[in-house]
Amino acid sequence: MKVKSMIMSLLMLVAIPLNSSAQQNLWMGDGIRSVEIDDTQRVTLRLYAPDAEGVALQGDFLAERVAMSRGEDGVWSYTTEPLPSEMYYYSFVVDGIGEIHDPESVYMVRDVAKQMNYFIVGGGCGDLYKPQAVPHGTVSRVWATMGDMERRMVVYTPAGYETSKRRYPVLYLLHGMGGDEEAWLATGRAAEIMDNLIASGHAEEMIVVMTNGCTRHVAAPGYSEEGMWRPYMSGSMDGSFETMFEDIVAWTDKVYRTKAKADSRAIAGLSMGGFHAMQISKTYPKMFDYVGLFSAAIFRGKEGVMLYDNLEQRLQKQFAEGVSLYWIGIGCDDFLYDENVKYRALLDTLHLPYTYHESEGGHTWRNWRCYLTDFAQLIFK
Amino acid sequence: MKVKSMIMSLLMLVAIPLNSSAQQNLWMGDGIRSVEIDDTQRVTLRLYAPDAEGVALQGDFLAERVAMSRGEDGVWSYTTEPLPSEMYYYSFVVDGIGEIHDPESVYMVRDVAKQMNYFIVGGGCGDLYKPQAVPHGTVSRVWATMGDMERRMVVYTPAGYETSKRRYPVLYLLHGMGGDEEAWLATGRAAEIMDNLIASGHAEEMIVVMTNGCTRHVAAPGYSEEGMWRPYMSGSMDGSFETMFEDIVAWTDKVYRTKAKADSRAIAGLSMGGFHAMQISKTYPKMFDYVGLFSAAIFRGKEGVMLYDNLEQRLQKQFAEGVSLYWIGIGCDDFLYDENVKYRALLDTLHLPYTYHESEGGHTWRNWRCYLTDFAQLIFK
Repeated sequence: MKVKSMIMSLLMLVAIPLNSSAQQNLWMGDGIRSVEIDDTQRVTLRLYAPDAEGVALQGDFLAERVAMSRGEDGVWSYTTEPLPSEMYYYSFVVDGIGEIHDPESVYMVRDVAKQMNYFIVGGGCGDLYKPQAVPHGTVSRVWATMGDMERRMVVYTPAGYETSKRRYPVLYLLHGMGGDEEAWLATGRAAEIMDNLIASGHAEEMIVVMTNGCTRHVAAPGYSEEGMWRPYMSGSMDGSFETMFEDIVAWTDKVYRTKAKADSRAIAGLSMGGFHAMQISKTYPKMFDYVGLFSAAIFRGKEGVMLYDNLEQRLQKQFAEGVSLYWIGIGCDDFLYDENVKYRALLDTLHLPYTYHESEGGHTWRNWRCYLTDFAQLIFK
Repeated sequence: MKVKSMIMSLLMLVAIPLNSSAQQNLWMGDGIRSVEIDDTQRVTLRLYAPDAEGVALQGDFLAERVAMSRGEDGVWSYTTEPLPSEMYYYSFVVDGIGEIHDPESVYMVRDVAKQMNYFIVGGGCGDLYKPQAVPHGTVSRVWATMGDMERRMVVYTPAGYETSKRRYPVLYLLHGMGGDEEAWLATGRAAEIMDNLIASGHAEEMIVVMTNGCTRHVAAPGYSEEGMWRPYMSGSMDGSFETMFEDIVAWTDKVYRTKAKADSRAIAGLSMGGFHAMQISKTYPKMFDYVGLFSAAIFRGKEGVMLYDNLEQRLQKQFAEGVSLYWIGIGCDDFLYDENVKYRALLDTLHLPYTYHESEGGHTWRNWRCYLTDFAQLIFK
C-alpha cells in the first residue's frame, strides 16, 4: 500500500498525460494493448506472458483454438483474418493452466456462470451494439412487487422519458435458461440496440422491461440476500413464472408512464424466454398484440401443468382477441429447429398467421441480438 | 457450438438439480468451490491448475503473496487466518504467468483499470456491504443534461420511491481520481450500504446521486461513443467539474422528487472527490448544509484557477450561510494525512466548526466504505 500511495501521490502532483504508459503501468501491469482492431477489421490480440511455454487463443470467431506467437518482448500475439462486424468473446489458454481472462481489458460480460472478455468489430451490425453519439436511455435496476414478493427487474426507458410527459409502449424481454434480468443488457446489448434504433428512427420510442424468469431466485446472482451463489442452468417451465406476469405488468403500468393496453404491449424472449412469451401471451390473451419467439423452446414445459394444456384452443382464443405480429425466428442449426418446424405446422393447421425469420447459425446470442434488432423495428407501428 | 447445443438440449430434457456438478461443469470448467468462508471467518481459496509448477495467492487481506498448496487432484488451496468482517480482493499468480482472475467466480468489481475478484466476510461491517433481506432501492444509470452536453450519472432512489408521493433529500457522492460514476456502486458498495442503513433506521431515506468528476469524459469507459477506452488515472481539478454542479443539481431537482433546498442536500467525496466536495460546497454556499470530505486531496487543485482563490473568505462565506455538518475523515497512514492536518488548522484558525474522524489505514476503499457508513447516518436528521 505504501508504494502505491507514494506513486499516487506523485501522480496527483503532476499533470497526467492521456495514455501515459507510466500511469497505466500502475494499474495495468505491463500496459500492452491487448485488443487492436485495424481498418480492415483484422483483430490482433495480445498477452504478456514472458515465462509461458505456450499460449493459445480461443474465441467464438475461431473454429478452434489457435497458437499465439511469442515476440522477443514476451508478448504473445495473434492476428485474425478480417472479421464480420459483430460482438466477439475471447480468452487465452496458457500452457496447461487453462483458460484465463485478458488482464489488460476491463471489458467483460457475464453469460450464465462465465465472465467473458469481448470486443466489438464495427462496420455492420456491431455498430448497433456499441454506444454511439446519440441520446441514451436510462437503465434502472428495480425491485417490483409481485403479491408478497419483491423481484428484481431491469427497465430501459428511452432518452427523454424523464422530462417528457408522454406515455410509452412497453416491450417485455425475457431471457433463456441460466439467464436472469441482467442477460439482455450484457450479452444481449439491449440498451445499445434500443438507443441506436430509436435515434435513427428505425424503432418507436419504447420502455423495455427485462424480467427474471427463474422463480427459484428473486434476482441475478449477488443482488439479493441469497448471496454470492454460483450461477447455473436455472429456469422455470412449470407455470410459476407465467402466473407472475399479471403482477409484473400491473406494477410496470403503475410505476411507469405506459400506454396500458394491448396494442402498446409486446412480449418476446429467447429459448426458455420464447417459451415463456408464447405461454404468457396466450394465458393473458388480451394483454399483448405483439409476440416474439426467438429460438423458442416451444415444447419443453413441465408435464401436467394446467396452464400448458389445450394449446390449440388457447392459441385460437389469443388470435381471436387480435394479434398484430406473431414473430418466430430461429437459426437453421439450432437444436430447437425441429420443434419450431412442428410449431409452425400447428399454427398453419389452425390458420393462425405469423411472420417467420430463419437465420444461419444456432442457439447463440449472435442470433438473438439480430432477432431483437428485427423485432424492435416491427412493433408499435 | 454443436457440442454445447447438444448438451444444452440434453439439459433441457432433464430436471436440473440445484448445484448439480454436471451442469456446472458445462459452464464452469472443473466446478470447484473457489471461495469458502467457514464459521470462524477463515477463508479457503482454490484454483484448479494441475499442470502449474507453482501458484501463489495475493489479496488485500495478506501482507504479501503466499504460496498455495497443491492437492493430489490438481487443486491448489490456501486457508487464511480468521479475517475481520470486510470486503476483500484476491487474485492468483501462476508460475511466471502473472496475476490471473478466479475462473470459478463471476463476482468481480472494477477499480479504475482493473477487474478484481472479491468476497465478503460477514459478521461485522461486511454485512452492510452485502444485500440483505431488506427492501432494496432502485439503481439507475441516467444521462443528465448540462448545458449542451449529456453526461452519465448513477442515481440511487430508496425503496418505496416509485410508489410514494413524497420528496426526498439528496446526497451527491463523488469518486476519486481514476474513478467514474460506477465507482461508488462497485468497490464502494453504496447501494448495499444505503439499503441496509435505511432499513435498520440508521439513515434517513435519501436519493444518492453519483456523478462523473472527470470532465474529459462523458461516461465511464464503454458507456459512450468514446468506445472501449482503457481507464487511467483521469480526473479534473481545474474548476471544470465544479462549475457543472449547478446544472447537475438543477437536473436532479427537475427529474426526481427532491427536497430542493440546502437543509436537504449533502455532498461528499473521496480523495479528488473530497476536494470537489470542498470546492463545490463553497462555490455554491447556499446549496449544501452537509459536507463530507473523505481522505480529501485538499490542496491539489490546479494553480491559477479563479474558483480556487480566496479559500479563507469563501469558506467563511459558506459557513456564514449555515453548515449543519462539515465532516472530515482520513486514515492515519493516508498520504494525504498531512494536508488534512493543515486544512483542519486553517478551519480552526477561522473558527469554522467541523467533525473529525481519524481511522486506521490509508487511502483505501475499506476506509471510504466506513466513512460513507458514518456520514450517511449523520445527515438530514
